Amino acid sequence: MDFTAKAIAEFLKGEIVGDPEIRVHDVSKIEEGTTGPLTFLANPKYTEYVYSTNASIIIVNRDFLPSKEVKATLIKVDDAYQAIAALLQLYESLKPKKTGIHPQSWMEKSVQTGDDLYVGAYAYIDENCILGNNVKIYPHVFVGDGVEIGDNTIIYSGAKIYNGCKIGKNCIIHAGAVIGSDGFGFAPESGDYKKIPQVGNVILKDNVEVGSNTTIDRATMGSTIIGKGVKLDNLIMIAHNVTVGENTVMAAQTGIAGSTKIGRECMFGGQVGIVGHLEIADKVKIAAQSGIGASIKNENIIVQGSPAYQVIDYQRSYVYFKKLPSLVTRLEELEKKWKEINRE
Amino acid sequence: MDFTAKAIAEFLKGEIVGDPEIRVHDVSKIEEGTTGPLTFLANPKYTEYVYSTNASIIIVNRDFLPSKEVKATLIKVDDAYQAIAALLQLYESLKPKKTGIHPQSWMEKSVQTGDDLYVGAYAYIDENCILGNNVKIYPHVFVGDGVEIGDNTIIYSGAKIYNGCKIGKNCIIHAGAVIGSDGFGFAPESGDYKKIPQVGNVILKDNVEVGSNTTIDRATMGSTIIGKGVKLDNLIMIAHNVTVGENTVMAAQTGIAGSTKIGRECMFGGQVGIVGHLEIADKVKIAAQSGIGASIKNENIIVQGSPAYQVIDYQRSYVYFKKLPSLVTRLEELEKKWKEINRE
Amino acid sequence: MDFTAKAIAEFLKGEIVGDPEIRVHDVSKIEEGTTGPLTFLANPKYTEYVYSTNASIIIVNRDFLPSKEVKATLIKVDDAYQAIAALLQLYESLKPKKTGIHPQSWMEKSVQTGDDLYVGAYAYIDENCILGNNVKIYPHVFVGDGVEIGDNTIIYSGAKIYNGCKIGKNCIIHAGAVIGSDGFGFAPESGDYKKIPQVGNVILKDNVEVGSNTTIDRATMGSTIIGKGVKLDNLIMIAHNVTVGENTVMAAQTGIAGSTKIGRECMFGGQVGIVGHLEIADKVKIAAQSGIGASIKNENIIVQGSPAYQVIDYQRSYVYFKKLPSLVTRLEELEKKWKEINRE
Repeated sequence: MDFTAKAIAEFLKGEIVGDPEIRVHDVSKIEEGTTGPLTFLANPKYTEYVYSTNASIIIVNRDFLPSKEVKATLIKVDDAYQAIAALLQLYESLKPKKTGIHPQSWMEKSVQTGDDLYVGAYAYIDENCILGNNVKIYPHVFVGDGVEIGDNTIIYSGAKIYNGCKIGKNCIIHAGAVIGSDGFGFAPESGDYKKIPQVGNVILKDNVEVGSNTTIDRATMGSTIIGKGVKLDNLIMIAHNVTVGENTVMAAQTGIAGSTKIGRECMFGGQVGIVGHLEIADKVKIAAQSGIGASIKNENIIVQGSPAYQVIDYQRSYVYFKKLPSLVTRLEELEKKWKEINRE
Repeated sequence: MDFTAKAIAEFLKGEIVGDPEIRVHDVSKIEEGTTGPLTFLANPKYTEYVYSTNASIIIVNRDFLPSKEVKATLIKVDDAYQAIAALLQLYESLKPKKTGIHPQSWMEKSVQTGDDLYVGAYAYIDENCILGNNVKIYPHVFVGDGVEIGDNTIIYSGAKIYNGCKIGKNCIIHAGAVIGSDGFGFAPESGDYKKIPQVGNVILKDNVEVGSNTTIDRATMGSTIIGKGVKLDNLIMIAHNVTVGENTVMAAQTGIAGSTKIGRECMFGGQVGIVGHLEIADKVKIAAQSGIGASIKNENIIVQGSPAYQVIDYQRSYVYFKKLPSLVTRLEELEKKWKEINRE
Repeated sequence: MDFTAKAIAEFLKGEIVGDPEIRVHDVSKIEEGTTGPLTFLANPKYTEYVYSTNASIIIVNRDFLPSKEVKATLIKVDDAYQAIAALLQLYESLKPKKTGIHPQSWMEKSVQTGDDLYVGAYAYIDENCILGNNVKIYPHVFVGDGVEIGDNTIIYSGAKIYNGCKIGKNCIIHAGAVIGSDGFGFAPESGDYKKIPQVGNVILKDNVEVGSNTTIDRATMGSTIIGKGVKLDNLIMIAHNVTVGENTVMAAQTGIAGSTKIGRECMFGGQVGIVGHLEIADKVKIAAQSGIGASIKNENIIVQGSPAYQVIDYQRSYVYFKKLPSLVTRLEELEKKWKEINRE
């Protein structure tokens, strides 16, 4: 990164207060107080740092009026948070991109490829795969027979895509993620279990991001489907035949059991668990560590608990759970009084 | 897949109602309503789909009597669910199998191998390993020094087996699973921690399935033992020196702490946690997200909660937990009345 | 392992009771009762095994006085547990170490290396990395551009280190761990989400151990920092911009959300979850499966629950939670009596 305040202000259509020629090489959070970089004030809670930071440039909202002297050059914009995001995107887009096929990689002859393909060292791409334009496959990635990968998708080192899965455009799959491993299906048979072959696949629609070491199992038959724009954090488990609706977001270590259908635009906290064969309505929010044991029919509600119900009710109950010892004392007090009065 | 109704009926010893020559190329769940494939009715809840599905062939139980017209060809069998499982197994067994040693793989000279070995690209097999017949090792698998792998075992891409571990026959280890990493053992020593070397190993008995990105740590000394027929889902953690009894089944994201002994034929829901040095009796069932803080001596019980106890008692308590606000109101009401009466 | 009782006693400065020439080739836990090996008695709960074990040598505390005949040779030391740890460390240090650069590995020319480097098969080390002395990189490891790795650090098979991360000295990173994948950062934008590029990195200080398949995300900007001596078990999630203080220890499947600051010498049980932007004081202990929804200011406390609070209070409430049905019966009883008396 090497930008002047002037260049940044032009890109962001912002207004400079201070030295337009000052340069930054790095970016940091205002509360972290490193010296020299570009920083930004988006959360008013951190306003005090504007006066103490050693940053060279601070991006602030247009309505920000300093109440003390500010050493740094300010750039005033309509929305400081969106501005920093846009700037990071610019910076990212200027970085050199990986390209070319590494001599120590293996692609079967039947694989069809687009333009600007990157295949890293020791990546392996099996028969009959179809790779779009600008696909980036990092070292040690495994792509099984007949997998399709859409344009601009990035698959980081060591991710594994089993045979027959379909990955959309503009997806990002992080290191160690596993797409298409067998669903957990067994038929009990005289004391032990017989494996039910899992002949389905996984379909990731466009713009999906899958976190590192997350696992998405293939369908027993048919497809496990991850909708357009879905964002999955690290270490998540999506079981066989699950469907996740568009733009739903799940935090780390959440697990969804088999055949459950999740609506669109849902938001799940970390370590949430949902049992199998349920339906979760659109825009449902689930608090971290909650467990869902029954379908949720109402859109737009927030639930908590294990099993979970309306968050406001859960929290009210939990307040009294914490007070249970004193409530019991009060109950005992009444019982005692009763006995005294009635000479029981 | 390319089967006629006649061929399917013969294989399943079923009876055809409809066109024996009709062909199917795919299989799907009846409630998913795709066109053309083979499907089946095992769950009476989905009976209505028999009349609306676009499937070509439906496998039904022998006692199924349609109440309306059915477009599809029916095949009547004793048990529709077992029939579909058998058919999927047949289909799976007819698929071409991976064979041969990929030129871009590495096996040390001291490795002993059986017949029909498959070693995929970039797999690495270290000194003194012993591989049985029909072992399938996918790309990027790591097999450490002196590992033994039994006949017919499949190890999917990127699974890692540390040195000295023993894997039985007919096992399936999914992508990214780690077998034999160090147990979490440290001795506190003047403020920080000194590592206790982990010199044991992991033993998987026959017919074990290990889900993707599941981790099984080696014993500090001795062995971590996964019993015959055990099925572990994805992202499970089995700590050092744990023993899991035969045919026990664990759902995803469950964690078992060090030295705990799990009985046989247990069933654990997802995200269960069990602390170390406990004993869990045979056939115990643990509800999802439960936490086990004490040994369970009684076989065949079902527990829930964190810490967990008998499921029926937990659920009864939880009903009242949800009602706590109204219970407290009732308690306050009584207190108020008491005060009024007694002019306290 | 091949030691005589005499050699062991000399190394441990212990006293032999029995045959000084007896040899052991293996080590086991006293309660596991295998034949022939070295074992030890550190936990008085297992004292009975001293008289029944088939071990050849037992290390005991100096004050141990047998109450019956002991077949094995005893070695008396000041602290049996520390003695066995020291012995395992000796044994580990005598094992042959991996060395050399495997012909089937790839290191870019710009990489700087120290002495005694091991690079295993199919490992890939990208441009401008700096590797210290005695670094051990196992097969299938990925090391991205510009990564620095300190002296004596071991990275096991298939671990992935994204570009720009810094790994200290004497670290151990287990198989499948992912260091430096993107933080989970998205800006909502007219219904869907726009990725916020994650331009920071991860810094592991010295003496850190990272369990298998654990993931540590890079900072959005700045660094995610894992302090000196921190020990992370398997399948843990550390989100972007988290800081973990020195010598903190976390059990498996714990998750820390973004920007949270964890103190030093904390101990977290398994499956703990901590929400983002919190501060946890030094030496805090968190019970397994607990959820932390607010900062913890007081050092040295122990908390439990979801949301968590003081463990002793949580456990008292939980006792009454289990009794809720009978408490409700008592409340109903009082209400009934009240009605009878007052003819309501």
